[in-house]
Amino acid sequence: MPAEVRRVCVFGAGAIGSLLAGHLASVCEVSVLTRRPEHAARLNQDGLRISGKSERVANVHATSDTLELPSFDLGIFAMKATDLEEAAQRVEGLMPAATMMTIQNGIGAEQVVARHGDWPLISAVTFMSGNRRSDVHVEYELDTPTWVGPWARTRTPLEVVEGVAELINASGLRAEAMPDLLPAQWSKLIFNSAINGVAALTELPHVAAYAREDELGPVVRALIDEGKAVAAATGITLYDDPWEMNVLAVARGETDHSDYAHLPSMLEDVLAHRATEADFISGALVREAAERGVPAPLTAAVHRLIKGKEASWRVTRPRLEEVAG
Amino acid sequence: MPAEVRRVCVFGAGAIGSLLAGHLASVCEVSVLTRRPEHAARLNQDGLRISGKSERVANVHATSDTLELPSFDLGIFAMKATDLEEAAQRVEGLMPAATMMTIQNGIGAEQVVARHGDWPLISAVTFMSGNRRSDVHVEYELDTPTWVGPWARTRTPLEVVEGVAELINASGLRAEAMPDLLPAQWSKLIFNSAINGVAALTELPHVAAYAREDELGPVVRALIDEGKAVAAATGITLYDDPWEMNVLAVARGETDHSDYAHLPSMLEDVLAHRATEADFISGALVREAAERGVPAPLTAAVHRLIKGKEASWRVTRPRLEEVAG
Repeated sequence: MPAEVRRVCVFGAGAIGSLLAGHLASVCEVSVLTRRPEHAARLNQDGLRISGKSERVANVHATSDTLELPSFDLGIFAMKATDLEEAAQRVEGLMPAATMMTIQNGIGAEQVVARHGDWPLISAVTFMSGNRRSDVHVEYELDTPTWVGPWARTRTPLEVVEGVAELINASGLRAEAMPDLLPAQWSKLIFNSAINGVAALTELPHVAAYAREDELGPVVRALIDEGKAVAAATGITLYDDPWEMNVLAVARGETDHSDYAHLPSMLEDVLAHRATEADFISGALVREAAERGVPAPLTAAVHRLIKGKEASWRVTRPRLEEVAG
Repeated sequence: MPAEVRRVCVFGAGAIGSLLAGHLASVCEVSVLTRRPEHAARLNQDGLRISGKSERVANVHATSDTLELPSFDLGIFAMKATDLEEAAQRVEGLMPAATMMTIQNGIGAEQVVARHGDWPLISAVTFMSGNRRSDVHVEYELDTPTWVGPWARTRTPLEVVEGVAELINASGLRAEAMPDLLPAQWSKLIFNSAINGVAALTELPHVAAYAREDELGPVVRALIDEGKAVAAATGITLYDDPWEMNVLAVARGETDHSDYAHLPSMLEDVLAHRATEADFISGALVREAAERGVPAPLTAAVHRLIKGKEASWRVTRPRLEEVAG
C-alpha cells in the first residue's frame, strides 16, 4: 500500500462507487459523499454490503454534506457522466492537495472536473460491473479490471497512478496502471457507443445477436468501423479492437451462462426512463468526428434516435393517455 | 354506384377494415370476415359504430367461417401485412369471379394474394386512419384519401377500379383511381419506412421533431434520400415527395392541434409488443435496394434495429425478472 494514498473519498454511491468504497475500505480509510442525507445515514448505520464476486460488509464514513467530509488524498468521481457537472461544482475548492480520479463512461469527464479545480487528475476506464440492490448493498457482477492513467493535461506523476492501481488491487478489485490511457479509453468509447447505442434502441441486453451476421452484427460493426476511423484520424492506436471485445463478451455470456450479458448501462437508463449518457458516448464521438472531418453518419443517426427516445418519455406517454381518452 | 360491385366482403375488421365496412354498408351489401367468432357475433348483434369524422351505425353480415360468407363482387384484404399470408390462405379458391383489393402498408401485398388465387387485383394505398375503440366501434380520425389502381401484373380493367373509387366516395370515405399506383405506393413506402422506422425506435409520435434540423430531421431526410435513390433506380417517378409529406404532416398537426400526430402504426405495434410490418416496409426497401445494387445503409440499420427491438420482447423482460431475482 503506497504511502501517498491513505484516505479515499468516493463521490457518489451508485453501483461503481459502492464497489470502490466497499472494497477500498479494507485497505484504507474511506469516506463517501452521497446526494441524499438518508442514503448517508443508512450507510453509516448498516455499513456497505458487497455480495457476488466478493462478500463483505464495509465500514464507511458517509455524508451528504461536503463540509462534513474528512480530509482525503484521493477523490473518486463515481457518478454517471450526466451527474458529473453538478458533483464537480459541489466539491469545487475542496482538498487542493488531493488527486482526483474520473471513472465515467465515454470521454470528456476530466475536462468537466478540471473546470472546477486544479487537482492532478487520474483517468480511469472500468470494465467491472455491479448491480445495486439497495442503498447499502451492491452485487459485484463482472470482476474485470479498471484501467488507470495520468490525465495527459495534468501533472499527475505515473507513480501516483501506480500507487492507486496497487491500492485497488490490494482491496480485492482489479486494476492496471498505464502511462497513456487514451488507447484504452477510446477502445471502450467505441465499444460503448456501438453496444450501448444498439441496446438503448432495441432494449436487448448484450447477447449473441450483437455479433451475428443475420441479426445486429452488421449494425454493430458499422458503428465500430465509424468509431475506428475517428480514432485513426485523432492519431490514437486502440488498445483493444472493439469488435473483438463485442465478440468475446457475448461468447463469454453464451458459454458460462454468466451474468455478463448484463444490461448495458444505457439500457438500464432507458428502462428506468432516465437521461442516458449518450452525450458523453455517441454524442462525444459525433463531435470528435465533426472536428476531424471524418464521416460518421450511422453513429450520428443512432445518437439522434437515442435523444428522440429520451424525448418520447415526455411526449408519447401523455399522448397515449390523451388518445385513450 | 357501378353495376359491377354490389356486394363487398371485407377481410379483417381492424381499424381500416372497420372504416371500409362501416361506410360501404351505406351504399352496398357488406360482409365481414373476422378471425374470432365472438367478434363476428358482436358485429351481427350490435352493428358497427363509426364516430369522429363521420357518425353512423352500420349493419354488416359478419362471420369467422369462410364457408358461411355470402357471395361478393369485391373482396378487400384489410388486415395488417403481417397477417396477410394467413388470410389469403383462408380465402384461397373462394369467389373466382370476384375482384380482390389489397390495402396493406408497404409493398408486396399483391404478390402474396396472387399466390392464392387468380383474381383480378386492385392495389390500394390509404392515408385515412382510424382508432379502434372496441370490436364494434372505430373512430374515424384522418379523412385523407385512399388511392386505388389496377395491379400491373393482372388484367384488372381501369373501369373496375374507377367503379370501386366511386363506390368508396359515395360511401362517405375518399378515394381516387389512378391508372398506375406505383408512384403513389412508393411515395408512401418511402415515407412510411422513414417515419415508422424512427417512430418504432424512438417511440415518439409523428411530431415536429421529425422535421427539425437539430432533432430527428437529418435522420428522416437521410432515410428518405436512400428510398428515393432506390425508387429512381427502379424507374419510378414518385407521386409525392416523401420529405414534403413529412413536413406538411407535422405542420398540420402543429397548426390545428388535430389528431394527425397520431401514433404511426408501427409505433402502435411496438407499444403493444406486436410484430411490426417492418418486413413489408423498411425490409422491402432494403431488398429492392440490394436487387438494384443501390446502397441503403441507414435503412438497413434501422430495419435490423427494429427486428432487434421485436426480439427484445422475448429476451429483455424475462432477463430483467431474472436479474431482479
